[in-house]
Amino acid sequence: MERKWTERHRLQALGRESADLLLKNCKLVNVLSGEIEDGIDIAIGGDRIVGVGHGYEAAHVIDCTGLYVHPGLIDAHIHLESTKMTVFHAAKRMSQSGTTAVITDPHEITNVAGLAGFMFQSECARLNRYIDVYFTAPSCVPTLNDLSVETPGAKLDSETLALLANMPSVVGLGEMMNVPGVLDGDAEVIEKIDRFLSVGKVVDGHAPGLSGHALNAYIASGISSDHESTVLEEAREKLRRGMYVMIREGTSEHNLEALLPLIDKNGRNISRLMFVSDDLDPRDMEGGHINRLLRRAVAAGVDPIMAIQMATSSPARYFGLDREIGAIAPGMLANIVVCQDLIDFNVHTVVFHGRVSSSRHLQQKENDLRLPYLPMTMNIALPALEDLRVPYCKGMQLRTIDLVEGQIVTRAGIVDPCVVGGYVEASPADDVAKICVFDRHRASGSVGIGFVRGFGLKRGAFGSTVAHDSHNLIVVGTDDESILTCADRIVAMGGGQAAIDGDSFVDMPLPIAGLMSDMDDVVETETTMAEFCKTALELKLKDPFAALSFLALPVIPEIRITDRGLFRIHPDGGPECVDILV
Amino acid sequence: MERKWTERHRLQALGRESADLLLKNCKLVNVLSGEIEDGIDIAIGGDRIVGVGHGYEAAHVIDCTGLYVHPGLIDAHIHLESTKMTVFHAAKRMSQSGTTAVITDPHEITNVAGLAGFMFQSECARLNRYIDVYFTAPSCVPTLNDLSVETPGAKLDSETLALLANMPSVVGLGEMMNVPGVLDGDAEVIEKIDRFLSVGKVVDGHAPGLSGHALNAYIASGISSDHESTVLEEAREKLRRGMYVMIREGTSEHNLEALLPLIDKNGRNISRLMFVSDDLDPRDMEGGHINRLLRRAVAAGVDPIMAIQMATSSPARYFGLDREIGAIAPGMLANIVVCQDLIDFNVHTVVFHGRVSSSRHLQQKENDLRLPYLPMTMNIALPALEDLRVPYCKGMQLRTIDLVEGQIVTRAGIVDPCVVGGYVEASPADDVAKICVFDRHRASGSVGIGFVRGFGLKRGAFGSTVAHDSHNLIVVGTDDESILTCADRIVAMGGGQAAIDGDSFVDMPLPIAGLMSDMDDVVETETTMAEFCKTALELKLKDPFAALSFLALPVIPEIRITDRGLFRIHPDGGPECVDILV
Repeated sequence: MERKWTERHRLQALGRESADLLLKNCKLVNVLSGEIEDGIDIAIGGDRIVGVGHGYEAAHVIDCTGLYVHPGLIDAHIHLESTKMTVFHAAKRMSQSGTTAVITDPHEITNVAGLAGFMFQSECARLNRYIDVYFTAPSCVPTLNDLSVETPGAKLDSETLALLANMPSVVGLGEMMNVPGVLDGDAEVIEKIDRFLSVGKVVDGHAPGLSGHALNAYIASGISSDHESTVLEEAREKLRRGMYVMIREGTSEHNLEALLPLIDKNGRNISRLMFVSDDLDPRDMEGGHINRLLRRAVAAGVDPIMAIQMATSSPARYFGLDREIGAIAPGMLANIVVCQDLIDFNVHTVVFHGRVSSSRHLQQKENDLRLPYLPMTMNIALPALEDLRVPYCKGMQLRTIDLVEGQIVTRAGIVDPCVVGGYVEASPADDVAKICVFDRHRASGSVGIGFVRGFGLKRGAFGSTVAHDSHNLIVVGTDDESILTCADRIVAMGGGQAAIDGDSFVDMPLPIAGLMSDMDDVVETETTMAEFCKTALELKLKDPFAALSFLALPVIPEIRITDRGLFRIHPDGGPECVDILV
Repeated sequence: MERKWTERHRLQALGRESADLLLKNCKLVNVLSGEIEDGIDIAIGGDRIVGVGHGYEAAHVIDCTGLYVHPGLIDAHIHLESTKMTVFHAAKRMSQSGTTAVITDPHEITNVAGLAGFMFQSECARLNRYIDVYFTAPSCVPTLNDLSVETPGAKLDSETLALLANMPSVVGLGEMMNVPGVLDGDAEVIEKIDRFLSVGKVVDGHAPGLSGHALNAYIASGISSDHESTVLEEAREKLRRGMYVMIREGTSEHNLEALLPLIDKNGRNISRLMFVSDDLDPRDMEGGHINRLLRRAVAAGVDPIMAIQMATSSPARYFGLDREIGAIAPGMLANIVVCQDLIDFNVHTVVFHGRVSSSRHLQQKENDLRLPYLPMTMNIALPALEDLRVPYCKGMQLRTIDLVEGQIVTRAGIVDPCVVGGYVEASPADDVAKICVFDRHRASGSVGIGFVRGFGLKRGAFGSTVAHDSHNLIVVGTDDESILTCADRIVAMGGGQAAIDGDSFVDMPLPIAGLMSDMDDVVETETTMAEFCKTALELKLKDPFAALSFLALPVIPEIRITDRGLFRIHPDGGPECVDILV
């Protein structure tokens, strides 16, 4: 272990050498003693805090009189790919909200590009100068290991995960979604868990609604956290039985208000609670990040010191990072937030690794930064127009995927088909659109065809390579020409999202695994596309691409479509392939 | 890593197989959620807790209606040698007080017997069936690495400590007493610290009175705890700057009342506080152990749940043991205490590794248990009678070691010597006794001679091989014959303590490194000896052997004696050899 505490640090701590930066006269939110210390100086040497207290001098002094100072905030579970940005861009924005560390599970890019995808994110993380990025290794790639259900992009077995377990930046195994595998003691699943426990790292859970004996068995297997609780009683049981509970407030899930009552007024469970966003849409990054959760928690009556502990010391200890981050103490990384008050948590200054984030020497020209190598992930053979046709069989009805607004579950519907020249077509009048999923990993030409109800699509088509979890190419349209044109365009971009109406179109290139952009205009582009979908295509959903991204996930009831066809998903188990016509 | 969670455990957790033991209808003190859950069942399979909640069945059921159930208690820092008992005997007594785990620093036996001493305690710990014993590796053996000051029993360098750092039962580096070495960045000291940090283990501190810049530098070097605070402000500063504070209440130090106000009423620092006893005299083990501290803390107004957290989950997390002990949750070791109330904390039943401690299959015939091998540690060459004589030089005065009652510091005194036939003698009338320290490690015949004031010794002699930190043989007497006779007796016992008055005597054999007995009558013997010292020798000190045990420790002011002679100890630094006559 190379010693991070140098000779110079030691002399600066002793006051025998002048510090580099001094935050003077702070109202220090001390998450260690659980109090606010007034009139404290914080001395920084290089990237470390060298002294806390008084009597230090430094070349550069920031007067913090009247200001609160707390440790940099930590998002304990986020899929950075959900921001559609590179780590560079996402980190810069988060930093502006007082976030200085995230624990990310690169679940999406790993599902697409496997180990290469993981390493790509890992290398971007290493290069970024705004936040510390720690990783959990994706535990369930692919979601289902069954080629007859869908064509996945990659596979991570316990052997490969064992390699990741030993990386210093990897702090644990990511959300273990294979609950049946855990409960049945599946050898490969247990092996994955043990590989991380045996090197002293944690295993995050993913157990929506799990309770009673099953929860006990799940916890006892070595899984120590969960971020899927949506109701208070669920979270309470998980906390009582030994789980660290991550309170989630993201783009797709909003659990903060429901779970805040979990916090013990007497603070006896604070060290076992934390905040996470899980998924964060680019447009949701504008109004802040974890500091927004603090604002809402405090507004709801939570003690501000406890709220800050949940966003700093609690996650740092849980992930074994508390020698480096999560508190303001001698020897730790100088990741510090200066803010006006403990009500709005608006950021005044952010210090990251001893440097003021806004200062020039930190400025990073993201687009100049050469991205690490990532193999091309659009390996696709698009079918011919006629291959998309659905011949009609007399007397039969059409099976549809019916959207449920505001939820990711679907309903299996039955309608009278619209038949033209012996083929089943979409009928915008009845809000029935055609949907296709194309394998984009193995150029197999494999395509799944179906019909979907609920988008309100009036004309044209829209599609995306963001389609959980295998992220094949999924397109919805009113006619085969539009569908293929849209698909063509997305392939030409090397992955991304597009919407077309005849000759007019909008698109967002996501050349990084078909999930992320390397540009700085993601938010603007997303807004433009939403506008186009609403006006030109008359889509009625607020976020049609979000809804679209879950239709190919063959583990959520009631009916899904993959590149292998249409599948009924039964709550008690596996997917069953079904015909379009019944 | 051999998996401790077996197939059978899994089936028992799921309720598919009957559990082995069921604690029914408990008032569960849940240290995880920070609350008391009423009417909870705890299912145990083998040595593990398999389920918490309801709906479990078991072969053996204990009805806990109306009873409180909390995790087994943890003493976060104790030198087990101070009990003068083998781990077997000490563990059995502690278990009866609800203690199921200790973190011990075998500082004494390692100073005497080196690695062999450490391994002896380690093996005894492994064989005992009453408590889990975890170790910190002694960081400062010997106290001073200077043969001209005293003859030590052993030396542990960073290389040897590195071996210990990798033992699973070793959770950290023991109290780092070499504060100057840490602050000066001494290479060997830093190496010792890094060896433990690099394998993810903690480094305990020992920094009485350390404050300000020096404290910052000490903490930043990687030292994360301290148990030496005696006043509130000292403990508060250490907590604020990043230390885990161990509140000590032992035989030699009583800091509980002074430090209780440190506990935040809102629990925001509970996870960073714990209880320790440090040193525990055999007679002090009668009135309980950590449960006695809980009783006093609660009586002083501390929330009982918080107090229990400080004695269970807090130390378990600090030492990285929280996957095994410190809470009642599925998958953890079944170390559980059933008690009548949260006021007296009197123990009703103790479950250790899934078995009721009082039950027969746990009964261990300690004296039948074959002790691990330990080399003979009395390697001594006693001088002849005439070698102890102190020739008088005309016109000179006598230097004395003056005891300060109730403290371990001494004062350097000057008296008119009592001269008989040209030799300086003890003079009981003036409370001046002769004191000798004999090297018992290397048979060098090295002996230090001096005079001590304050014992009130009227006749005879008393001596001990318990003499911090090198534990040479130390004897105090009114005449050389008694001193040598006493020394002879202790050598014959293979180490121990004795008091003689002419032909009558009492003694306690401590054949294990001259520190511990392998018998079960330590408490009784100690009482007998105290009585003899009081009546026969008319010693006025309550515990003369305790006072005696510190007189050879050449790091505490003002004056000490070792086998190399008399030393003045200057507060600012090292010991200076001085003459008896001035």
